[in-house]
Amino acid sequence: MSALAWQRLGDYLRETQLLGSIHSTLYWDQNTRMPPEGSSWRGEQLSLLAKILHGRQSNKHFETLLERAKIEFEHSRKEGELDQEQVLARSKNLELLEQELIRQKRLDPELIGQIASAKAYGYNLWQQARASSDFSIFLPALKRLVSLRKEQARQLNEPRSCWETLAQPFEPDLTKSRLKELFDPLRKRLPELLEKIRDLELGTNSSWDLPESIQQELCDRLLNDWGRDHSITCLARSPHPFSTTLGPKDFRLTTRVVPGQPLSCFLSTAHEWGHSLYEQGLLFQTHQWFAWPLGQATSMALHESQSLFWENRIARSRAFSERFWPFFEKAGAPIKSGSDLWHEMNPLKPSLIRVEADELSYGIHILIRTDLEISLLEEGLSVEELPSEWNRRYKDLLGVVPANDYEGCLQDVHWSEGQFGYFPSYLLGHLISAQFSEAMAKELMNLGLDQDDPIGTCILNGKESMILSWLRKEIHPHGRQMNAEALVEKVTGSPLSSKPFLSYLEKKIEMLSIDS
Amino acid sequence: MSALAWQRLGDYLRETQLLGSIHSTLYWDQNTRMPPEGSSWRGEQLSLLAKILHGRQSNKHFETLLERAKIEFEHSRKEGELDQEQVLARSKNLELLEQELIRQKRLDPELIGQIASAKAYGYNLWQQARASSDFSIFLPALKRLVSLRKEQARQLNEPRSCWETLAQPFEPDLTKSRLKELFDPLRKRLPELLEKIRDLELGTNSSWDLPESIQQELCDRLLNDWGRDHSITCLARSPHPFSTTLGPKDFRLTTRVVPGQPLSCFLSTAHEWGHSLYEQGLLFQTHQWFAWPLGQATSMALHESQSLFWENRIARSRAFSERFWPFFEKAGAPIKSGSDLWHEMNPLKPSLIRVEADELSYGIHILIRTDLEISLLEEGLSVEELPSEWNRRYKDLLGVVPANDYEGCLQDVHWSEGQFGYFPSYLLGHLISAQFSEAMAKELMNLGLDQDDPIGTCILNGKESMILSWLRKEIHPHGRQMNAEALVEKVTGSPLSSKPFLSYLEKKIEMLSIDS
Repeated sequence: MSALAWQRLGDYLRETQLLGSIHSTLYWDQNTRMPPEGSSWRGEQLSLLAKILHGRQSNKHFETLLERAKIEFEHSRKEGELDQEQVLARSKNLELLEQELIRQKRLDPELIGQIASAKAYGYNLWQQARASSDFSIFLPALKRLVSLRKEQARQLNEPRSCWETLAQPFEPDLTKSRLKELFDPLRKRLPELLEKIRDLELGTNSSWDLPESIQQELCDRLLNDWGRDHSITCLARSPHPFSTTLGPKDFRLTTRVVPGQPLSCFLSTAHEWGHSLYEQGLLFQTHQWFAWPLGQATSMALHESQSLFWENRIARSRAFSERFWPFFEKAGAPIKSGSDLWHEMNPLKPSLIRVEADELSYGIHILIRTDLEISLLEEGLSVEELPSEWNRRYKDLLGVVPANDYEGCLQDVHWSEGQFGYFPSYLLGHLISAQFSEAMAKELMNLGLDQDDPIGTCILNGKESMILSWLRKEIHPHGRQMNAEALVEKVTGSPLSSKPFLSYLEKKIEMLSIDS
Repeated sequence: MSALAWQRLGDYLRETQLLGSIHSTLYWDQNTRMPPEGSSWRGEQLSLLAKILHGRQSNKHFETLLERAKIEFEHSRKEGELDQEQVLARSKNLELLEQELIRQKRLDPELIGQIASAKAYGYNLWQQARASSDFSIFLPALKRLVSLRKEQARQLNEPRSCWETLAQPFEPDLTKSRLKELFDPLRKRLPELLEKIRDLELGTNSSWDLPESIQQELCDRLLNDWGRDHSITCLARSPHPFSTTLGPKDFRLTTRVVPGQPLSCFLSTAHEWGHSLYEQGLLFQTHQWFAWPLGQATSMALHESQSLFWENRIARSRAFSERFWPFFEKAGAPIKSGSDLWHEMNPLKPSLIRVEADELSYGIHILIRTDLEISLLEEGLSVEELPSEWNRRYKDLLGVVPANDYEGCLQDVHWSEGQFGYFPSYLLGHLISAQFSEAMAKELMNLGLDQDDPIGTCILNGKESMILSWLRKEIHPHGRQMNAEALVEKVTGSPLSSKPFLSYLEKKIEMLSIDS
């Protein structure tokens, strides 16, 4: 069988991926090591690379390579030269590449460069604004980003609303109406649950902290415990924790130390490790598909389902606290039992900061952001109104009011880089994680584990490797073969719903209140 | 005055510099953060960028831009539209760009890619070989690098020997015969001085160490003391200390902690800071010349003169120890006086490792490497013979024999990246630093400072800023306007010679022996 055109296309994609991962390396460095004054030049570098990448993803040469590979593929399929798996994989790869080509061709190269510059500029001003807790410093940059992103959606000209169009790269096929179906039960039930825990007073009142180096050691212990391979991973610090893949065997994650919140660094590490594990389990490790769509994550909701799973279903579980509390005690924390640590891990108390939020109020943080984004892009909310609108909604839905912009609308990095449409992925990730957990529990029960809490039994016995094996088999390898909702239905047998998440929350509240 | 062609050339150079500094960023990350398994993909990234850079530096479009800028410049000059300074700067910029274009055009693009891959491969094998102290692991990579570099020199086809051709990027206009003139007095005198100190027993016998975090704090104190601006600099760790500039306001340096050598990290930091200060003082800060030849360092010898100056003439001076010893005592070091620290800083005892060497035996380390490089490239020494030949020369010239390859021919990073022709720059740097110091001392005396030791007086009083001012005025801003030897003659009034360095060494030995 000749597969010359396929090979040529692969070589081309590989070179594009080399450049793309250089772009990611610059981003990694920008967030972990670059001195602040380096940002202007870095912005130019990123902008230049974005221009080159856009060129490669939209030019005639690529289009020809893709057409020829398609003709060759159709021929090979007709001649019966490919097995069923090859046919499925190749046709999906071609479909996704074509979809992306059409999108890229519609964008003016100049706009791509402008967006890249505006992102670097925005990130820089956002940092300055945060440092002085003054939204007005960031305002001009955000205005520019909103206007550039609107223009981007206009140029893409898809049969979707502006916000939906911008959300596609994060959540393929997402619509506002589907989001409404999934989120409406949460909009109703989460405030009721919040009311319930307010009476139960489940928040801890202890105030303690751990030195940075000790927190670092606990994070190292956690990742080593979870099987970290040091030869392919690196853990660093950044203002906003993130995880990124810089090569087929080069996985980076960051965390941060928040004074007065001794578990923040630990839980961020667990969260980012979940992201990294998903990427480490993608098919490119065995199929040389690092540069192909099927070697990529299917959506950010799926990504978040993995990070939230390791953060909430494992690190915040009762079983994990039972196993891990002695290390915290030894580190100098006022922790004398598994129950102590577990309550510290699960304060269930509405707070202002999303990334420090408990599992219950987290959803509210996302509902607020999603509504604000859609308002900014589609419903005429002005950027100037953002801080007051932000604060108003926090008061209404969570009953807490930011004392300043740092605690308010400057807390997240996303908008500083012009990422709109990302936030719902977090909450969808919660839903997916809950639904996956139910399916995983069933399979672990079939393997003979404790009927009541098979996942907890694994964790208690330090057998997270059994959990990872299930994820490695059922979730990670599919890449973009199917979108997040299709994968959920394939793995769990039912369409995605908010029920498993809500019932998990209700059970957790009950357990925490019994134990307190 | 119209300067359209000049502007276009500048825009093109700027884009080339953006890509070049991306290459440097990847190198920085490779050495400071990348997990080991990332090296293969990183090698491909670097190779791709090297190919793109070579293309930009040798293509017809660049040639045309250069020709047009030259015609425009000649016209403007004739019309009297440029002042004398502009004429000098522009003609030098054009001359250097043309020289580089001719070189790049002579190289086969395929060779450029091969060298980039071989460098990444070599660096990786060198690290493995060092870890197991086994030269044979590195051998195939070094063989390939030697053969590729020979081919590079052949293609460049300059009226120079192979080694001289490869040394040009580090030391413009260097010849083996000039090197012989400068080094022959050292070849004769350094062993005599070594013999002398052997009798004086100036090496300290103390064995102590400091925890990594304390060493880090001392380094931070040093750089803050020397006026480090945190908004444009970053200090990290790497296996081999280095300094690099990633943007007009983005200066990076690394150091390392060597167990059992508590001053190594401190002195490496001082050394790399000297490199960084030179780059920070280049003309691009005021002239927007970051992308132009005149905004670049003139040679590695000049670069090393600056790093060695801060390491040896400042950090290793008696005056510095007098001022800094209390911080070492407070940090837990067995240091009770300036004299204690000064002797620890200046053991004057032949040892096996170049970067840990005293100022006296350092020259011998370089003479050995220079001879071996020339033998490898021009005189038929086989790569297989390198370890034994290395050890033989160390025994002959320094009287010490490496116990293994780690202490022997695997100690330096340079050859792992195929850098041949670099080593003499270190020793030339010692000579230049000594000659500059004499000129600086004269000027400081004219400013009314102590006649005996004006530099020491500055240091003792924490007035290193006066020293830096002199360097900022006399040395740093010239860039490639003139080569290293021409700059030495301009600043000191005499051609470069080994005399100031030898007389400095003799005086230092005398002072150390009186004080001991």
